[in-house]
Amino acid sequence: MAVSIEDIKRLRELSGVGMTDAKKALEETNGDFDAALKAMRTKGLTKAEKRGEREARQGIVGTYNHDSRIGVIVEVNCETDFVARNEIFTDLVKDVAMHIAASSPQYVSSDDIPAEERERVAAEFNEKAANDGKPAEMIEKITAGQIQKYFAERCLLDQPYIKNPDVTVGDYVKDHNARLGENIVVRRFSRIALGEAA
Amino acid sequence: MAVSIEDIKRLRELSGVGMTDAKKALEETNGDFDAALKAMRTKGLTKAEKRGEREARQGIVGTYNHDSRIGVIVEVNCETDFVARNEIFTDLVKDVAMHIAASSPQYVSSDDIPAEERERVAAEFNEKAANDGKPAEMIEKITAGQIQKYFAERCLLDQPYIKNPDVTVGDYVKDHNARLGENIVVRRFSRIALGEAA
Repeated sequence: MAVSIEDIKRLRELSGVGMTDAKKALEETNGDFDAALKAMRTKGLTKAEKRGEREARQGIVGTYNHDSRIGVIVEVNCETDFVARNEIFTDLVKDVAMHIAASSPQYVSSDDIPAEERERVAAEFNEKAANDGKPAEMIEKITAGQIQKYFAERCLLDQPYIKNPDVTVGDYVKDHNARLGENIVVRRFSRIALGEAA
Repeated sequence: MAVSIEDIKRLRELSGVGMTDAKKALEETNGDFDAALKAMRTKGLTKAEKRGEREARQGIVGTYNHDSRIGVIVEVNCETDFVARNEIFTDLVKDVAMHIAASSPQYVSSDDIPAEERERVAAEFNEKAANDGKPAEMIEKITAGQIQKYFAERCLLDQPYIKNPDVTVGDYVKDHNARLGENIVVRRFSRIALGEAA
């Protein structure tokens, strides 16, 4: 069937794939835009993940101040200065900074959790399970999920995105990788709330 | 046994004691965090009671963004919400945040320098003096001033204030204590510059 050029362009913008791929996807789904988008998102993301190996050295440092009570700094890197000045990118940085203010993550990703902290938390959950009378040989299985949940709640990229809790912040960033055609990396952040312990 | 810097910091924040006391407590309990916390809580509370009602618990969190390349957050405390909303106070916070962006301090004051870092730097200066052929019995005297200078350059309150280098930032803050009639404390800050090592 005939596929409209508008749909191809829209699909390309939303998924970050090329014109040819976008056209093919729409033809394969008989012009069903949503089905094509879904297929292309996967493809776009795969591409973006490959880009993960390209270095993200440009970018911007964003700050967000909530009512003089919470301050956030976040550094988000991309590959070119061109993308760093793109409004889609600067809006992403604002969104991530606001999310951090609201959801107080402690780490960017699970890679940033110090080994001692992992051990401390694991020991706490294991001790609790033992105190609850769980059989010793089952404890690690029981607590593995608890420990993962504990840290997922504290890692920015694993948190449900505040403006759309159906996706994680990590998904939201990856979506921008695809849209902007560059590897985008939340490198680090800092958050200070009045009177809170650091 | 070795005591992690994370535990020392956490203990310090939770109990309100200094870095040195926190480290000592962890060493005395062989790294048992909960036992150390219990001991330090008692001590910390006693200290806080001594400070009486003059504690600076109000204040604001200020942020400053320089050209999307440098971000700063600073928490400055005062005693009352009334002063926290005073323009003299909010201007001070802005000034301090801008100063931090320009002068990249590492610590608020010399109290915040971890003992390990002091030892590392002292060892470096001492080794250099020894290599330069300074007599062993003179080395500590020679390097004491170098070490002090090294850290003064890295402590916010000891740095020459960027807008008036005749005074330190500490002097500038003290001046506001007097002007506003309240105890004013720069509690902590964070600074992120694009592409710089953390």
